[in-house]
Amino acid sequence: MTKPEHRTPDSVWNAWGTADAASPLSADVRTLVEQGLGITHRDTQSVDRADISLRPCALPAEARGALAEIVGADRVRTDDDTRLLHAGGKSTPDLLRRRAGDLESVPDAILFPGTHDEVCAVLETCAAQRVAVIPFGGGTSVVGGLEPDGGGFGSVVALDLRHLDELVELDTESQTATLQAGLRGPEAEELLGAQGYTLGHFPQSFEHASIGGFAATRSSGQASAGYGRFDGMVVRLRVATPRGTLDLGRAPASAAGPDLRQLFLGSEGAFGTITEVTVRVRPKPQEVRSEAWSFPDFDTGARALRTLAQEGALPTVARLSDETETMLNLALAHDVGEGSPSGGCLLVTRHEGAQPGAHERAAELLARAGGTSLGPKPAEDWARGRYHGPYLRDALLDVNALAETLETATSWSNLGATYAAVRDALTESLQAQGTPPMIMCHVSHVYSTGASLYFTVACARGEDPVAQWRQAKRAASDAMSASSATITHHHAVGLDHREWMADEVGELGLEVLRAVKSTVDPSGVLNPGKLIP
Amino acid sequence: MTKPEHRTPDSVWNAWGTADAASPLSADVRTLVEQGLGITHRDTQSVDRADISLRPCALPAEARGALAEIVGADRVRTDDDTRLLHAGGKSTPDLLRRRAGDLESVPDAILFPGTHDEVCAVLETCAAQRVAVIPFGGGTSVVGGLEPDGGGFGSVVALDLRHLDELVELDTESQTATLQAGLRGPEAEELLGAQGYTLGHFPQSFEHASIGGFAATRSSGQASAGYGRFDGMVVRLRVATPRGTLDLGRAPASAAGPDLRQLFLGSEGAFGTITEVTVRVRPKPQEVRSEAWSFPDFDTGARALRTLAQEGALPTVARLSDETETMLNLALAHDVGEGSPSGGCLLVTRHEGAQPGAHERAAELLARAGGTSLGPKPAEDWARGRYHGPYLRDALLDVNALAETLETATSWSNLGATYAAVRDALTESLQAQGTPPMIMCHVSHVYSTGASLYFTVACARGEDPVAQWRQAKRAASDAMSASSATITHHHAVGLDHREWMADEVGELGLEVLRAVKSTVDPSGVLNPGKLIP
Repeated sequence: MTKPEHRTPDSVWNAWGTADAASPLSADVRTLVEQGLGITHRDTQSVDRADISLRPCALPAEARGALAEIVGADRVRTDDDTRLLHAGGKSTPDLLRRRAGDLESVPDAILFPGTHDEVCAVLETCAAQRVAVIPFGGGTSVVGGLEPDGGGFGSVVALDLRHLDELVELDTESQTATLQAGLRGPEAEELLGAQGYTLGHFPQSFEHASIGGFAATRSSGQASAGYGRFDGMVVRLRVATPRGTLDLGRAPASAAGPDLRQLFLGSEGAFGTITEVTVRVRPKPQEVRSEAWSFPDFDTGARALRTLAQEGALPTVARLSDETETMLNLALAHDVGEGSPSGGCLLVTRHEGAQPGAHERAAELLARAGGTSLGPKPAEDWARGRYHGPYLRDALLDVNALAETLETATSWSNLGATYAAVRDALTESLQAQGTPPMIMCHVSHVYSTGASLYFTVACARGEDPVAQWRQAKRAASDAMSASSATITHHHAVGLDHREWMADEVGELGLEVLRAVKSTVDPSGVLNPGKLIP
Repeated sequence: MTKPEHRTPDSVWNAWGTADAASPLSADVRTLVEQGLGITHRDTQSVDRADISLRPCALPAEARGALAEIVGADRVRTDDDTRLLHAGGKSTPDLLRRRAGDLESVPDAILFPGTHDEVCAVLETCAAQRVAVIPFGGGTSVVGGLEPDGGGFGSVVALDLRHLDELVELDTESQTATLQAGLRGPEAEELLGAQGYTLGHFPQSFEHASIGGFAATRSSGQASAGYGRFDGMVVRLRVATPRGTLDLGRAPASAAGPDLRQLFLGSEGAFGTITEVTVRVRPKPQEVRSEAWSFPDFDTGARALRTLAQEGALPTVARLSDETETMLNLALAHDVGEGSPSGGCLLVTRHEGAQPGAHERAAELLARAGGTSLGPKPAEDWARGRYHGPYLRDALLDVNALAETLETATSWSNLGATYAAVRDALTESLQAQGTPPMIMCHVSHVYSTGASLYFTVACARGEDPVAQWRQAKRAASDAMSASSATITHHHAVGLDHREWMADEVGELGLEVLRAVKSTVDPSGVLNPGKLIP
């Protein structure tokens, strides 16, 4: 079996994921949210699908004909339902716009190529016909990476990679798998799992996001402490460009010049379409041990994680919530493990198929660093809900709360400063707008030299919630940049972080990126406007 | 203290390292070599320094004046002794040419800038004056990376970075150190060691090579299994180019687009001069445990290493010699540890500051995989001589033996095929030239997905040893490429591997490299001819 039996369903057009997994807030939680955030307006439900009509398809007949020749006429779709499902990503502004019926930005057509060569031919044709191309895997971008921006071209197509869905090869001796880019997270795990392996890549978007998307955005999963970031797993990758194919990576490591894989990892469809990756895989873990810990405060917890990372004693999952996130988790859950103190900071750990003694050693270090074990239950609770966060956002949007996330990473010595700077910036911006926020944060990706910070912000929705969030997000992004942290640890650049790329790589670095793009995409049709200012 | 007290001495012009560390072959070993390789000619000693005269310095007065304004007149050197010491790297062909008095290729002048800004100004001036610039750290390239090739420009200068020799910052909380590029291996270790830290980067060239060189060539050290490759240690790097400065890397990990650090790591001075790197460091290990093992054959030993890597149980050093290398080591050493079997394959392991139980777990896995412990002695012997290999090469050259090394890496499932293909190619080429070789190999860099292969070749010296080796090297390189292995795992590209870069990254990949170079080095003065065909 090289193709998955169970297919990931399409996401709904105006919310995260699938309708059956959505769940409205309970009356109690709703009251808590309304009181906590000072929400007084009535609910703001989404407009109905029936009330939406899209602008007419602008793809010229000649281009359409040429593309149909490549992928087949039935794989060039221009119906409104398909266009709506490819209208962009799933950031809160994306959802707010769609819920309000604002669908200015939709692709004119969606192409469903079936092979790498078809992708190459599509890109070449789009370049020749001057049609913008947006890559589309799971459609879960939260940074505007999939915005169907025509970029000055007359029409724009989305390239849906769902038919690139094969496990091409599993090399059990080298523990690598070659996966096509359109495989979604669960599909890839199904194929690997049938042969006893796992990729170990479980970001919150896992249930929908695609292998190609993981590579193109430098995704990092919840188990990154154990399995690494996605970009670190990639041994080889294949990229289709309007100017041909790039096959990059010939060894587990090489000194044959610059590592060009690292130019295409994180290139977000602007340098080509990743059609296939060869990634490191691991035998499926036989045993999983979960344990939650309580720390008196965020600083002490972060220091404990630093110790684990620097002693080489990280569990597979390590996720530390700050005081606010811990309190909210406690409030949302009905009960926690025995002996759980109120307050403090919750740390969730999981050891998957760990080395003998690894769990015990981590436990010893955590206890010595000031942690109190809460037993397995809070960690198991977290694991059950690990992909549910974005559904909660939809439920909050329904009751007029604005909720969104943003994230960064920095060195250990700078972590406290960045944490404070981003919190302060968000608080100040949203308070000034009359909607004081609740801000939560967790550390979920840990390295020997530093860690990530993942913020969740909730506040009452203002009159113009897109502008409201844009202002807060700008303040937070400026704060990250000013505190020498990266603008994104694992959400990528897209449109939303583009403006801060000069801080990341400098003006000369931007020129380098532009030179690379001009080489592989001379006409500039690939995902216009993303990544590079 | 931010500058080292003990300075690395200059290497001699016609051999590896320093004169005091050289040692001729003993009579016994010499006989063994002569009989083994069928050497009948008389010795071929190097020409004397006194018999060498260099072509006149061709640096125009205007350029010289402008450069002297930047670095100071005393830091623009054009004397023959200094030019001779910067005449290129230390590959066997490099040494053969120098020993024969062939010094066509020498820089016209050597510059000794003292700051990053001076390097920037030098590069800008050289671009304006059309003077080629060769970066120079430890001068240990074995792939022609330092060849003072004018590349069509009228003159060429070497940029000796020895005065960029500061430990700029040690962040003990984040376990990172910012080191200037001109620091040599022992100098960096001296500065870090004084504060209880180590970089853990110990390639065979450690005693001479520089921090900047490690970064510019993607060096990998003998302890890579424990500390990682140099490119993996780099958190941040600073690059001077004729068009200004690049400061790259803002976090332990980032999703802010392509990782541009990875374009400059391995760029071998062709994209700019790396002046400073921030690297991960570790506390100096308190305890070192050495153990050697014997395996019945190379395949079984390699399988054992694969198990260690895939079980996450690698020691800090893991180095497996094939049957020939093991036999030769036994012959050269007077004795080995008790219980050592004759024949088989030697595996050297070292655990430095390892986690509790790590040594025991590795030992258990190795024994289960067919290994027999030889105790610590052979591993301690290896450690004592770990930097001595290149001196042996000089001694061999003295007695008319040709000796050189080459290396590659590939996946575990391909390792046996690549090993056989490279051996066969070398054997066939040198046999056809009437000089049947002795070929040894070891695995010394191990990953979960594959490993390196490091070959040492020795044979009788032919009439034209440079051409003799060129033919053998070409056969080996073609064999690597044909077997899908990388052309170099840790020696870099330089001139010698340039021709195979199209196999590594494809024609479109080469265009990308050229586009990057044009952006940062529009006039093309940076290390002309290296890296990019």
